[in-house]
Amino acid sequence: MKEIRIGILGFGTVGAGVVEGIRKNGALMAERTGIVPVIAKIADLDIATDRGVEVPKGVLTTDAMSVIADEKIDLIVELVGGTTVARTFTLEALRRGKPVVTANKALLADHGEEIYRTAAECGVGIYYEAAVGGGIPILRAQRAGLIGNRIESIYGILNGTCNYILTRMEREGLPFDSVLADAQKLGYAETPPDLDIDGIDTAHKAVILASMAYGAPVPMSACPTRGIRGLAAQEMANADELGYRIKLLAIIKDNQGEVELSVEPALVPQEHMVASVSDSFNAVFVKGDIVDDTMYYGRGAGRMPTGSAVIGDIMEAAADKLNAVGIPVSVSMMLQRAALDYCPSVNIVKRCYIRLCLEDKPGSMAQVMAIFGRHNISIASVVQKERHETGYAPVVVLTQKAKESEFSAAMAEIEALEVSCCPPVRMRLEDFA
Amino acid sequence: MKEIRIGILGFGTVGAGVVEGIRKNGALMAERTGIVPVIAKIADLDIATDRGVEVPKGVLTTDAMSVIADEKIDLIVELVGGTTVARTFTLEALRRGKPVVTANKALLADHGEEIYRTAAECGVGIYYEAAVGGGIPILRAQRAGLIGNRIESIYGILNGTCNYILTRMEREGLPFDSVLADAQKLGYAETPPDLDIDGIDTAHKAVILASMAYGAPVPMSACPTRGIRGLAAQEMANADELGYRIKLLAIIKDNQGEVELSVEPALVPQEHMVASVSDSFNAVFVKGDIVDDTMYYGRGAGRMPTGSAVIGDIMEAAADKLNAVGIPVSVSMMLQRAALDYCPSVNIVKRCYIRLCLEDKPGSMAQVMAIFGRHNISIASVVQKERHETGYAPVVVLTQKAKESEFSAAMAEIEALEVSCCPPVRMRLEDFA
Repeated sequence: MKEIRIGILGFGTVGAGVVEGIRKNGALMAERTGIVPVIAKIADLDIATDRGVEVPKGVLTTDAMSVIADEKIDLIVELVGGTTVARTFTLEALRRGKPVVTANKALLADHGEEIYRTAAECGVGIYYEAAVGGGIPILRAQRAGLIGNRIESIYGILNGTCNYILTRMEREGLPFDSVLADAQKLGYAETPPDLDIDGIDTAHKAVILASMAYGAPVPMSACPTRGIRGLAAQEMANADELGYRIKLLAIIKDNQGEVELSVEPALVPQEHMVASVSDSFNAVFVKGDIVDDTMYYGRGAGRMPTGSAVIGDIMEAAADKLNAVGIPVSVSMMLQRAALDYCPSVNIVKRCYIRLCLEDKPGSMAQVMAIFGRHNISIASVVQKERHETGYAPVVVLTQKAKESEFSAAMAEIEALEVSCCPPVRMRLEDFA
Repeated sequence: MKEIRIGILGFGTVGAGVVEGIRKNGALMAERTGIVPVIAKIADLDIATDRGVEVPKGVLTTDAMSVIADEKIDLIVELVGGTTVARTFTLEALRRGKPVVTANKALLADHGEEIYRTAAECGVGIYYEAAVGGGIPILRAQRAGLIGNRIESIYGILNGTCNYILTRMEREGLPFDSVLADAQKLGYAETPPDLDIDGIDTAHKAVILASMAYGAPVPMSACPTRGIRGLAAQEMANADELGYRIKLLAIIKDNQGEVELSVEPALVPQEHMVASVSDSFNAVFVKGDIVDDTMYYGRGAGRMPTGSAVIGDIMEAAADKLNAVGIPVSVSMMLQRAALDYCPSVNIVKRCYIRLCLEDKPGSMAQVMAIFGRHNISIASVVQKERHETGYAPVVVLTQKAKESEFSAAMAEIEALEVSCCPPVRMRLEDFA
């Protein structure tokens, strides 16, 4: 049996979960791996609050830098969050030759390149399973089980808050605002909720997945991002009627050598497995050129699930350190090439759901259809609903595949029509074909 | 860049897939990991047949033992299959200090203990991701991502042939025999199909999963096994009507310190994700005490998916060898304890679906209900169908949880009733509660 002495920075929700998990199953982990995890130090600015887990005397400190500098500490677990001191701590630990385990997706999305390069220069590892998909071992699947695969596509439901809101809107027919308010009351959504509902959190995770899939740090600017804020109940109802559900998806594809990347709400077929991922669960679908379709599902957030991922990384980092592995695959895979080519978002080819609001008079539809035709957009189906008391009729169009630039030009032209009485609503339709 | 020289034993379907995968993506794998996989030798008794993949001159040989003995070969990939020469080859390679990658579930199910102990004694690894769930990196999830978790339960759909047959029976209302014949014609089922449809293949995989979850080799005798042979179309129709689907499940649970283990067809709720695993896909649901529910899904068999898992293991074995890791977790996790306690199958507590065939006369049902009552079996629902022309009425009962010993005693008593005109049909109902 060998000991590994751990310094934890940040004693919040996840930090307390990690400590609880190691207290509970540390002996089992040692039995399985031959490595005994020892929590040597925990640093937090607030060491007075009760975190719901017992900690031996002398372990708590307010001085994170002293933990990093402590020669008796073998590895650092960064759970501070944010991108300022977390960055400083992470870089400092790496420079001192200490492996770092982190759950910090924002840090890696914003400063990944600097961090991976520092790790490589220092010959040490950084491990970040918990940054994507909470307890789901998705990055490990990518960098180990699927290592022989060229990644063709990844679809992720990566934000539990959004998936919870969408599930309740769908099941209960409630409007976005009231479900959001409820989710905040129940602790499923933060206040303010922007990072989640505007898709930023999903985009953080998407760029990490894309970086690992294609071998270079992907900047946030390469990921067009749209969240679910203000999604109308009407869209949910229409999707349901047409045999679809709406999910906030991270979409990553190898588009003939260019990386296609986006975060957006999308209609997905009800019979596809992605549609059955409900409540606050996350899931990631990975298609490899050898393995074909695979899927990974679990809790994407929370004290214990995220703690589980951090603990998995701690044990791997410990084994790597004891075996003097040096630069692990979690670093080398991020630095295969200097930069990637991205598919400009205007070139993305996709299907769309479009809801129009047309004056209910002869020729309205013909004008719209002419615009679609001019932009090479084929129609898969059209449903015209009975007109509102207002005299306007909602029209729902599902298209075949067409180019984003054609869609946006067509939308502008349709909006400018005299018979169009409110801006069209458009969402991607992803049939996984 | 470091080279790893691979000797492949067995150039059948999976062997050819491994070679094809490495030819296709070997350069990418080297870029990701810094390790160049080189196929140095391939042994097969038949080296004349075209395997659909190009192999350099001098690589093929009919002498497996010479490959194992070759000092220039770093690791052995055992794809011979079966439990006789495969065992000899595997043990010989381990004794020579060469890591072994295998896809051979039967070998590990029957001789796992000897193999893991030999690996441990020789300080070398055996890697077997491909033995369970084909391309799905499920063992890696268990031994790495979820290493901090006590495993509460595992439910697996582990045999693509059975799942394909069940899916077609369900969707097309066809009888078992005709779907099986069709599956054989299409190459989805072997001739004879016994290993698959009698649940043996699923049980092989179940004991490997259980061994890893609970830390000691589990013998096949600890896994009561029942397949889907002869499943009546009527059961499919009844299940559907009641909101369930029938799946061949491997069920593994920590039952208060005893391992509960079985392979059997079971009714699962249509809205549970396990029900949406269709066609020849596999899936494994793992519940850990820290991570909660997780699920892994993908292709459970086939040249390329299984090849993907073998390749993942080759790269891990290579890294472990280059880093002088010695005994990896894939070995140490199997040898935590000398033996496990098993829950005797008569003590397993479960819900059941029971179809009876009763004479349609007053008092029939009362007699049956009295028997259930005497055996502490509560009824969740009863549906009596209209009687057949034969004058007998089928009755479908869904029970609450009760002990297997009570169920089997009750079934015997019911079968002996004068009003019972054919043997009752009984299946587990698994609601995951």
